[in-house]
Amino acid sequence: MGTVRLGILGYGNLGKGVELAVRQNDDIELVAVYSRRDPASVTVATEDLPVKPAEALESGTEPIDVLILCGGSATDLPKQTPHYAALYNVVDSFDTHARIPEHFAAVDAAAKESGKTALISCGWDPGLFSLNRLMGNCILPQGADYTFWGKGISQGHSDAIRRIEGVADAKQYTIPIESALEEVRSGSNPQLTTRQKHLRECFVVLKDGADAAEVERQIVTMPNYFDEYDTTVHFISQEELDRDHSAMPHGGFVLRSGQTASGKNMLIEYSLKLDSNPEFTSCVLVSYARAVARLNAEGKSGAHTVFDVPPAYLSALDGAELRAHLL
Amino acid sequence: MGTVRLGILGYGNLGKGVELAVRQNDDIELVAVYSRRDPASVTVATEDLPVKPAEALESGTEPIDVLILCGGSATDLPKQTPHYAALYNVVDSFDTHARIPEHFAAVDAAAKESGKTALISCGWDPGLFSLNRLMGNCILPQGADYTFWGKGISQGHSDAIRRIEGVADAKQYTIPIESALEEVRSGSNPQLTTRQKHLRECFVVLKDGADAAEVERQIVTMPNYFDEYDTTVHFISQEELDRDHSAMPHGGFVLRSGQTASGKNMLIEYSLKLDSNPEFTSCVLVSYARAVARLNAEGKSGAHTVFDVPPAYLSALDGAELRAHLL
Repeated sequence: MGTVRLGILGYGNLGKGVELAVRQNDDIELVAVYSRRDPASVTVATEDLPVKPAEALESGTEPIDVLILCGGSATDLPKQTPHYAALYNVVDSFDTHARIPEHFAAVDAAAKESGKTALISCGWDPGLFSLNRLMGNCILPQGADYTFWGKGISQGHSDAIRRIEGVADAKQYTIPIESALEEVRSGSNPQLTTRQKHLRECFVVLKDGADAAEVERQIVTMPNYFDEYDTTVHFISQEELDRDHSAMPHGGFVLRSGQTASGKNMLIEYSLKLDSNPEFTSCVLVSYARAVARLNAEGKSGAHTVFDVPPAYLSALDGAELRAHLL
Repeated sequence: MGTVRLGILGYGNLGKGVELAVRQNDDIELVAVYSRRDPASVTVATEDLPVKPAEALESGTEPIDVLILCGGSATDLPKQTPHYAALYNVVDSFDTHARIPEHFAAVDAAAKESGKTALISCGWDPGLFSLNRLMGNCILPQGADYTFWGKGISQGHSDAIRRIEGVADAKQYTIPIESALEEVRSGSNPQLTTRQKHLRECFVVLKDGADAAEVERQIVTMPNYFDEYDTTVHFISQEELDRDHSAMPHGGFVLRSGQTASGKNMLIEYSLKLDSNPEFTSCVLVSYARAVARLNAEGKSGAHTVFDVPPAYLSALDGAELRAHLL
């Protein structure tokens, strides 16, 4: 395998993470950051790395093997991934689980037409967690699946709090309940309610004159987001929020608890403990970009997911090296 | 995908486990057990399941899609896997890590010649643990790997004790040291010696008149097996050994502790807790047998390992179902 030339579209937390991850992979070269903003306003961390307008991609002739799409799942990726799959091999981290089938279909049609290879919904959930759910189900067909998230910041829940009147800023942590995890690990295949699996802990900065009791009431009773959980609310200053809650840690657990035909218990557990959610997701995207380049070189066009990628394709090493050192 | 027809060669713990695992997979049919023993002396658990002499396989015309080789790695598989790969698609659990390259080469030559597909070194280590080592290394190129085994019975160490004069029977447990695991989980990337990672606990039945102190001395000082470990020896009766130590539990942990280019810590942990080591290995073999049938149908002959198999191939479900429910 030669060098894989990458482009990044979108220079937010994820794009910055991809830029960092490339530095740890000698066979991967970052060609340019593409941005919808004025390139002059985008300051990248890497010296001499070109920043180009997103329009530069439209020719389909940018010198990149894979374009990593670092936009959001709500509005960016549903349009961007099919659009750019018509021009380049692409990787995205589309994470709206319920809309994956339609996203896959749109991207697949575009990539098949262009002969390009696309990998959608890459990262850790969907992504590595999905792989563990799939393999757990295949290996232990009789059993139960459990996914716990956290401890980590949920962007969606933090945003929901910030929309409440009187709230200046907020961060929300999703916290797995240790006793529920232990119950799963015991092999008892418990039925767990939403409330039994996760706690929600909120750090909220109030605007001047806001009614703390009313804000707290609105948070803990908010449908879908908080009403089915035990939620704790802490009111702190903006300085405290910035000082203590600016990192983006996350992680979680996927467990498959199964029983063999003779009734023996088996437990498969996979977990992640991440100091930075976007930086880790970026590391996964860069590994899979290598796989996408290889799939395309083999003529495998169309949309793919992590389920379709032979694990060896993530590595710069050849099969003999992998078998000798990692098998 | 239609039904996958399996044959089992060798009806020990692993073969029995495969027989059990097939019952949990509706799309897999067990055609026959093949044995080097007199078939009349082999009593299988499944009513009406034929037991045939191993010689029946020589024609290459047995009605099976995949033959699962359930022999041992020391002497059986180095001969059997290349031999049967010339006749059938095969899966084995060859687990002598240092000899995997030569085993792969021999099997690959035979399977390429016959147009059959072989998967070697399948199970959990090598197997699922290998996959996690590979993916951890790809995703977090800067970091350290840790594999801990147990708590579980090591057949090799139990056998080594049984060869000591004065020992009637023995079982040896490999036990990961919790404080070492915690040190790894802390992200400090410790350098751990053999002694710091695992304990060895032995349950030994003495022959009449044997010298317990001398047996214990021979165990704890045995080169390669015990001398680099802290080892505890308990002398018990045969009844106690049979009653309390007849199960075959095992498991372990694979951890990848990495740092991103910005210095953030990331931890990936995979663990197994297995009430029966051979039954779990069998579950993995049966899932991968499904993949082997599919690879062969696509014309992918030759030797493969778990590194080469797209995870979706382990499942009886199609891509759309997997994306909708497990991604």
